[in-house]
Amino acid sequence: MIIQLNKDISESQKNAIIKKLESIRYKSNEVRTQAGTYLVGIGKAVFDIREIGHMPGINDIHIVSDHYKLVSRKWKVNPSIIDLGDDVRVGEGQFTVMAGPCSIEGEENIRLTIDHLAKNNIWIMRGGVYKPRSSPYSFRGLGLDGLKLWHKLARKAGIRIITEVMQVSQIEPMYDYVDIYQVGARNTQNFNLLDELGRVDKPVMIKRGISGTIDELLYSAEYVFSAGNEKLILCERGIRTYETASRNTLDLNAIPILKEKTHLPVIADPSHGIGIRDFVEPMALASVMAGADGVMLEIHPEPEKAFSDGQQTVYFREAENMYEKLRKAYELLNSWR
Amino acid sequence: MIIQLNKDISESQKNAIIKKLESIRYKSNEVRTQAGTYLVGIGKAVFDIREIGHMPGINDIHIVSDHYKLVSRKWKVNPSIIDLGDDVRVGEGQFTVMAGPCSIEGEENIRLTIDHLAKNNIWIMRGGVYKPRSSPYSFRGLGLDGLKLWHKLARKAGIRIITEVMQVSQIEPMYDYVDIYQVGARNTQNFNLLDELGRVDKPVMIKRGISGTIDELLYSAEYVFSAGNEKLILCERGIRTYETASRNTLDLNAIPILKEKTHLPVIADPSHGIGIRDFVEPMALASVMAGADGVMLEIHPEPEKAFSDGQQTVYFREAENMYEKLRKAYELLNSWR
Amino acid sequence: MIIQLNKDISESQKNAIIKKLESIRYKSNEVRTQAGTYLVGIGKAVFDIREIGHMPGINDIHIVSDHYKLVSRKWKVNPSIIDLGDDVRVGEGQFTVMAGPCSIEGEENIRLTIDHLAKNNIWIMRGGVYKPRSSPYSFRGLGLDGLKLWHKLARKAGIRIITEVMQVSQIEPMYDYVDIYQVGARNTQNFNLLDELGRVDKPVMIKRGISGTIDELLYSAEYVFSAGNEKLILCERGIRTYETASRNTLDLNAIPILKEKTHLPVIADPSHGIGIRDFVEPMALASVMAGADGVMLEIHPEPEKAFSDGQQTVYFREAENMYEKLRKAYELLNSWR
Amino acid sequence: MIIQLNKDISESQKNAIIKKLESIRYKSNEVRTQAGTYLVGIGKAVFDIREIGHMPGINDIHIVSDHYKLVSRKWKVNPSIIDLGDDVRVGEGQFTVMAGPCSIEGEENIRLTIDHLAKNNIWIMRGGVYKPRSSPYSFRGLGLDGLKLWHKLARKAGIRIITEVMQVSQIEPMYDYVDIYQVGARNTQNFNLLDELGRVDKPVMIKRGISGTIDELLYSAEYVFSAGNEKLILCERGIRTYETASRNTLDLNAIPILKEKTHLPVIADPSHGIGIRDFVEPMALASVMAGADGVMLEIHPEPEKAFSDGQQTVYFREAENMYEKLRKAYELLNSWR
Repeated sequence: MIIQLNKDISESQKNAIIKKLESIRYKSNEVRTQAGTYLVGIGKAVFDIREIGHMPGINDIHIVSDHYKLVSRKWKVNPSIIDLGDDVRVGEGQFTVMAGPCSIEGEENIRLTIDHLAKNNIWIMRGGVYKPRSSPYSFRGLGLDGLKLWHKLARKAGIRIITEVMQVSQIEPMYDYVDIYQVGARNTQNFNLLDELGRVDKPVMIKRGISGTIDELLYSAEYVFSAGNEKLILCERGIRTYETASRNTLDLNAIPILKEKTHLPVIADPSHGIGIRDFVEPMALASVMAGADGVMLEIHPEPEKAFSDGQQTVYFREAENMYEKLRKAYELLNSWR
Repeated sequence: MIIQLNKDISESQKNAIIKKLESIRYKSNEVRTQAGTYLVGIGKAVFDIREIGHMPGINDIHIVSDHYKLVSRKWKVNPSIIDLGDDVRVGEGQFTVMAGPCSIEGEENIRLTIDHLAKNNIWIMRGGVYKPRSSPYSFRGLGLDGLKLWHKLARKAGIRIITEVMQVSQIEPMYDYVDIYQVGARNTQNFNLLDELGRVDKPVMIKRGISGTIDELLYSAEYVFSAGNEKLILCERGIRTYETASRNTLDLNAIPILKEKTHLPVIADPSHGIGIRDFVEPMALASVMAGADGVMLEIHPEPEKAFSDGQQTVYFREAENMYEKLRKAYELLNSWR
Repeated sequence: MIIQLNKDISESQKNAIIKKLESIRYKSNEVRTQAGTYLVGIGKAVFDIREIGHMPGINDIHIVSDHYKLVSRKWKVNPSIIDLGDDVRVGEGQFTVMAGPCSIEGEENIRLTIDHLAKNNIWIMRGGVYKPRSSPYSFRGLGLDGLKLWHKLARKAGIRIITEVMQVSQIEPMYDYVDIYQVGARNTQNFNLLDELGRVDKPVMIKRGISGTIDELLYSAEYVFSAGNEKLILCERGIRTYETASRNTLDLNAIPILKEKTHLPVIADPSHGIGIRDFVEPMALASVMAGADGVMLEIHPEPEKAFSDGQQTVYFREAENMYEKLRKAYELLNSWR
Repeated sequence: MIIQLNKDISESQKNAIIKKLESIRYKSNEVRTQAGTYLVGIGKAVFDIREIGHMPGINDIHIVSDHYKLVSRKWKVNPSIIDLGDDVRVGEGQFTVMAGPCSIEGEENIRLTIDHLAKNNIWIMRGGVYKPRSSPYSFRGLGLDGLKLWHKLARKAGIRIITEVMQVSQIEPMYDYVDIYQVGARNTQNFNLLDELGRVDKPVMIKRGISGTIDELLYSAEYVFSAGNEKLILCERGIRTYETASRNTLDLNAIPILKEKTHLPVIADPSHGIGIRDFVEPMALASVMAGADGVMLEIHPEPEKAFSDGQQTVYFREAENMYEKLRKAYELLNSWR
């Protein structure tokens, strides 16, 4: 159950509610986020919601049968919108493109990408400065210095930054330079990282685990939310299957399923989802039609020279065509809503 | 290698070519289809194509590095179109909807479905009369009598029939009553069935195996083609993964990958691909945008009373909206080609 | 529910039972096998078993909550033993080795293999005469002539034959020459084939599907049993997963799980299960310890010259060591029972 | 390539080698571990090993074609043995049992487990004090206080401790109280954690990822080794597949494959690998026969009251039988070596 508390609830009122929950053997978890204070009650007993709902200090009470609670659409029917300022928003009713290179590579590359994005009316740039790599001998990214340089250039152009955070100790140093922290597919169940990101007031986008279930992704989001941060975005990026003709298997089924289960925005990453440059466009279009609130795309002025993931990275010129098509597809879909 | 022979090639000319292939250690497979006669050469040696290409009786010769040959787009760049008469065609440039109940259930249901389809300008009706069921105690379909009844009613309305054939002995009795034989996901590698369907002059649609690879699907098509039947359609219907939130994982990556690899039409089956009624529409739309040449849909006037698969079957009224949207999505996509 | 009928039950007694079942909304399936006659009742209602059990003509009645019935150990606690004559048996308490080449290749190879097996006290020889191959251009086996030759040589030496049957039309011609029909992993859900094998009085070994679940394997066995043939063996042969370091993923979990769920013998096929010659022995030993009633092994005098599957085929000399170890491992395990 | 440097190599000698490597376009990674100093050269060029091998300061040089280097058996043929003191060793030629509860639960439970282990001659106790849980509302373990208590009791009895470390910040506080750090399946690719564990002089056991490949596990070990810590153990604990009859699919194929690829000890975890109490024993025995250097087992005096994983946890009495059998199986296997 989720109990939304009044802002001016007194300690004794709160304690009375917690006691009441104990009496029906529900454990209370108090959650304070940017938007409010909640008691999440975990228990199994069936009870009469009215007995609790009338207690002083309670704004609202919902029974949520899902195992995840605060991220469930059963509790919060209205879609959550992540506001990044200057009319840049992520969530239902917006169509978001996040684009950029796999790895941030240096000033020249950043400048070219920013110009390309601004020209195409795209306001969120992706790029890795900390790169998780299977082999310890591979390039691991430019790190914080790269991020600072990127931030300086992006800020001028009004471009927001989304980039991966790999460990707790990076959260704070990155704070001033990112607009959205990205949790990568290998860290979807790095619960300490999620916990700490719950204590930060910056949006967090969580990618689905390499072989993560849809429910596990929602649980991971619940970690962040229940630790205090409601500003969450989910991302489907393909799962691991037996098929080797594509890098991953983009599971677009996850899009409508997630959209029904949660109020959080859902983004698709067709670049990782298929891993083949020529097929990023059809899979991005398919993502839109499946109901995604946006797409994340790997682009590069010279993909064949990209530091990483070149084979799935789209040329700027082709990307421009793609943006245009994505918007038209989104408009068509929106015209039916 | 694929050698297309002239229609009027003499036996001695043909033997000379076969001998030539033997001399470079290529095994010849002679293939006669509705459209032509081919020698498919299987071997590993590198050779000078001109040495063979000039031999009398040869119309055309291609080296095909794929392991499948006749279904490869490397040999035949132009898309194959399956003509079902009266302007009903399946293939690139057409948008096909095949719709109907999971199981054919009786006259009333057939009539209602036919009326619904004709009214909505849909000319291919799906339905099972032989049903593959995990349990021997489940309903296994109305069989041949059901097919005959269906055929009588469909013929009058100009509706074509696609239905599953489960074994070799059914091929002949079904022949007069089907327009497209469907090979189900459990029979994708039933090689005897494929072989025999190669000896029939009726279109065949092969569904991808439950955990079949894209290449295995192409090999299965090669079985039919190399046995003499070019009239082939492929169908992506979802694969088996660890995810249990959906019935299968619709692998839309397979659509652009197949469209590049083969000249055959590619259909998507979102009903089985996700297995949840409310999400069939978004996945059907996504299939169109991924580049499918059509979709196969389970519909029913009263899904909750359907003999099988009711949970993934769409109501007629909702289906009508879906057809409309699918056509608009297809038009939009087509406007960019 | 499973009702075992008396041998001398009268038609009217049987009809009374069927009527009784109808009255509690259970569908009756009459099953006649080599060992007895059963009514398998399929329904959902809860009922008092004593009300039915006392009816005349009933030998025994069991409620089986599993979806498969006749193959369930809930009904038949004693393990089923397949008797192949001359003290050759497959089932709990026996340790069975089935060994031979992937494909039957000709007289010389057959003779060598038979000598090797007899010398090592192994009485079941495997080998394919009908080979399911992904590509239509691959070697598809020597067919019936190969089987006849093999049978002639094996009979003399007292060796039994297990070989794959791929389609219904092969069942009869093969009948006189096989001791166990094998259903391959691509045909586990070829329900027509299973149905027809249920009408034959010869043992049938069913391999688990390439991505088949344990329950699906039991259902497939139920097909054969419910069509009249109790002489069934199951075989775990590895499943398809994302891991590419081995050909398949031998799922030894399936061994104890199957042994608990069913009274049928369970064999493991480590050759296909790992697909790497050097590791067949450890996986065969592991299969024994997991509780398998035997193993199926690919062996060849010269694996590098084998027509197929050479990379996973063991040399005779190494096989001899392996048999010895397998027997000792089985003895150790048996000493604890 | 791996170059083992002499202990007394001078800086200028080392620089000369690095320069030489640069000249053939190999990147040098200097690695200092407990046992030695290495230069790991990463590059693609083919070169004459003798040209480098003769350089002063080099003890040994090996070309390792695997993508992982220092953990490869191509370089170090002799198995690595992890010495925990007092004749407690993990590695080839030893048979190791690590047993204990899923979660450390309190003094009483610790005492009972320690007594049970010591009595059965088992010297490594497992147990979680930091528990990764899908849901943020689940019990997350007793934390450092629990570990300290456990350590105090275990030390007296001569029992070693293996327990999971979930994040970098826990490494140091845990240091005095653990004998083996365990990296859990959700952290196999938590590269920062691996990096930091490479800077610690305590053994580390890495579990295979939930859907990790065998190669990814080796890469993860390479992370730790290349950061300076050679004391590594690998653990197969089951992978995620479509099969739902077991919790995970214990991939015993991985055991012989890993044993061939790496010199590191390989442990199997049948408790997580199958997830069903009654089947832990057969799968543990199978693990031994597949070649595992030991097993990790969940045991509890009262599994039905365990804080977590009770359904896969074995009773003490049954565990005693199992240890005995495991040792006998290991002896039998060892008698053949």
